[in-house]
Amino acid sequence: VAGLRRADAEALDAADPLAAFRERFVDADEDARYLDGNSLGRLPVATRARLREAVEAWGEQLVGGWEAWIDAPTRIGNELAEGVLGAGPGEVLVGDSTTVNLYKLCAAVLDAEGPRRLVTDRGNFPTDRYVLEGLAAARGLELRLVERPEDLGSALDAPALAVLSHVAYRSGALADLPGLSALARERGARVVWDLSHSAGAVPVDLRAAGAELAVGCTYKYLNGGPGAPAFLYVARELQAALRSPIWGWFAQADQFRMERDYEPVDGIGRFGAGTPPILALAAVQEGVRITAQAGMAAIRAKSVALTELIVALHDAWLAPLGFALGSPREPERRGSHVAVRHPEAWSICRALIERAKVVPDFRGPDSIRLGVAPLYTRFTDVWDALDRLRALVERGEHRLVAPGASRVT
Amino acid sequence: VAGLRRADAEALDAADPLAAFRERFVDADEDARYLDGNSLGRLPVATRARLREAVEAWGEQLVGGWEAWIDAPTRIGNELAEGVLGAGPGEVLVGDSTTVNLYKLCAAVLDAEGPRRLVTDRGNFPTDRYVLEGLAAARGLELRLVERPEDLGSALDAPALAVLSHVAYRSGALADLPGLSALARERGARVVWDLSHSAGAVPVDLRAAGAELAVGCTYKYLNGGPGAPAFLYVARELQAALRSPIWGWFAQADQFRMERDYEPVDGIGRFGAGTPPILALAAVQEGVRITAQAGMAAIRAKSVALTELIVALHDAWLAPLGFALGSPREPERRGSHVAVRHPEAWSICRALIERAKVVPDFRGPDSIRLGVAPLYTRFTDVWDALDRLRALVERGEHRLVAPGASRVT
Repeated sequence: VAGLRRADAEALDAADPLAAFRERFVDADEDARYLDGNSLGRLPVATRARLREAVEAWGEQLVGGWEAWIDAPTRIGNELAEGVLGAGPGEVLVGDSTTVNLYKLCAAVLDAEGPRRLVTDRGNFPTDRYVLEGLAAARGLELRLVERPEDLGSALDAPALAVLSHVAYRSGALADLPGLSALARERGARVVWDLSHSAGAVPVDLRAAGAELAVGCTYKYLNGGPGAPAFLYVARELQAALRSPIWGWFAQADQFRMERDYEPVDGIGRFGAGTPPILALAAVQEGVRITAQAGMAAIRAKSVALTELIVALHDAWLAPLGFALGSPREPERRGSHVAVRHPEAWSICRALIERAKVVPDFRGPDSIRLGVAPLYTRFTDVWDALDRLRALVERGEHRLVAPGASRVT
Repeated sequence: VAGLRRADAEALDAADPLAAFRERFVDADEDARYLDGNSLGRLPVATRARLREAVEAWGEQLVGGWEAWIDAPTRIGNELAEGVLGAGPGEVLVGDSTTVNLYKLCAAVLDAEGPRRLVTDRGNFPTDRYVLEGLAAARGLELRLVERPEDLGSALDAPALAVLSHVAYRSGALADLPGLSALARERGARVVWDLSHSAGAVPVDLRAAGAELAVGCTYKYLNGGPGAPAFLYVARELQAALRSPIWGWFAQADQFRMERDYEPVDGIGRFGAGTPPILALAAVQEGVRITAQAGMAAIRAKSVALTELIVALHDAWLAPLGFALGSPREPERRGSHVAVRHPEAWSICRALIERAKVVPDFRGPDSIRLGVAPLYTRFTDVWDALDRLRALVERGEHRLVAPGASRVT
């Protein structure tokens, strides 16, 4: 870790090999310090033109546009697979929401392989838990909650289907994807990985890790826009054995011969359902491309350096003010955000947004998440944000905000 | 029906109370005659600016934008309910695809009410049949195919869940929504209506018709763009008894108190799942608004007049060339497209697109669909399209196109 003066942060920015990428994103308020790209990523400048083109293609080509559009979910899936996820061609499909995709893959495993114990960790993202709760209720299955992903082994005394997040949404803890995948395989369990908080921020290397199934979102580190279509991954070897529970016409072989019974296409397309959202997919493609151009190795290196700076500034400035680190201290066990905990976290978070133009987010009961997106977060952004945070708490300004409840993701 | 000269069509255009709406849609090729708005609607001019605004809101407000975005699925659902579907506030939700929404509602009924016979008509849209095939396979239920929606009664000798299209995608036949809803209620059956080919083209009046459940798409007559988010409708009285099979965080009560078990919100929001697609929803809202401004009564009146003109021109010009009408002759039994049948329909359709700048679409085995969208289709468009069709077949030009298969919706 470098020194803790602003000049040290400026030096890191000056030496940043990804510095030029920052200009490829819209920054509407240069005085703001946005540390919530882990919730909603910034708008890439190129996405403006890309969406204009997609809209005009609709206007000009009308139904004829489908010749080019129809493969978009697999075509963009391939770019995501190769440039970001370490998956092979034909293993990733873009479309639907993370929730729907998670449901599809979990139900597909249960339909193909029979009843299994459902497993997740208590701190997993709500929608992941809810999907499993719903499947457990509908099918009379046990849902076992372990404390942390690394406790998975304790739940594998019966055939299991686990849903684990690669990066934990609250703490930023990075799970051992290859190790837990190997453990699951050895014990005959299936794991669906949720990559929402790692895709585009942490190298995933799905194939190298031996991961079989995954889902994830594109509106965080992949900068696809609010509520952008999600993705799913099914390892090639598993595809033929699985079927989506939602039988839809965009998964049908020879789709436009409409008279036949359902027979899903070979390959990843069989996990599609309805008509794909073409405008939204154009924005996803742009976000994926900019990420792939930067390269996951460079992104990870900068991400680690940025979160190390947060940890160092926390230790120096925040710990004396009553904060505690809510994320792993070892960078190899951390994703691209750092949680700092404080009993007054909610009001501190509100005050940061309202009074200091610093945008983190709050996660109950007591965490402030500080997310860094290496494509556009500067070291000086981190330094300034924590400097403003320290000053705000020192002055007690967080006690001036109106009470209320955070409602925003 | 007026006379069959082009001057008669021009007179109808001159007297058209909806004529001004045409200018509110992009027409990139004034020489083309687009009769496929029943597959993909045109781009509203205002949608360009609307999408630009939505993109800039993302860029400027970043995560803070969610304060305004979070209610979009219900807010736009309310506009659609009031202006287009004849449903009440809090009965329509926009999001996901038609396929996913149909799956959600069918599974919700089966989960709440136990096993039922599944029923649809043999000619229903593929994805509707596939969803039911999938549910039948997963739950060991009988899937009964009746010949036509009006044969529903023959399948009601056991408790049933039927999926019926309000307007049949191939023939354009308009089902008796109030009558079949009443019959189903009387016999203890549930019907999920697919409004994809009627929403925005035919008055639906869900509440007046006593319909309980419905889904539909927004990229046809509602002009929401290719693959735009779909909608679902659940009558208020039924909502509390039903749960989506896909338990997701956007259906959760007090969503951002993330530690709790799943407990769906009261009301239509409980049928949501993942994060809603904000950019795509902005385009849907614009399409819904323009439709609501025109009013469904005026849209229906013009639609009937347009399809009557197609029928009259078919009888005068096409029947002598070997065509047969593939749609009901009585306008009250017809939606907003007319199918004309011919043994060489596929090559005629290709030739129309490639050589005559007329865009209908082909539906196997032998139908050419001619769709009219009253917001932008002129009587002269219909006249010109059928004139070019007649001339093309008279000259045998359809025999000059390369063989192949249509692949586009």
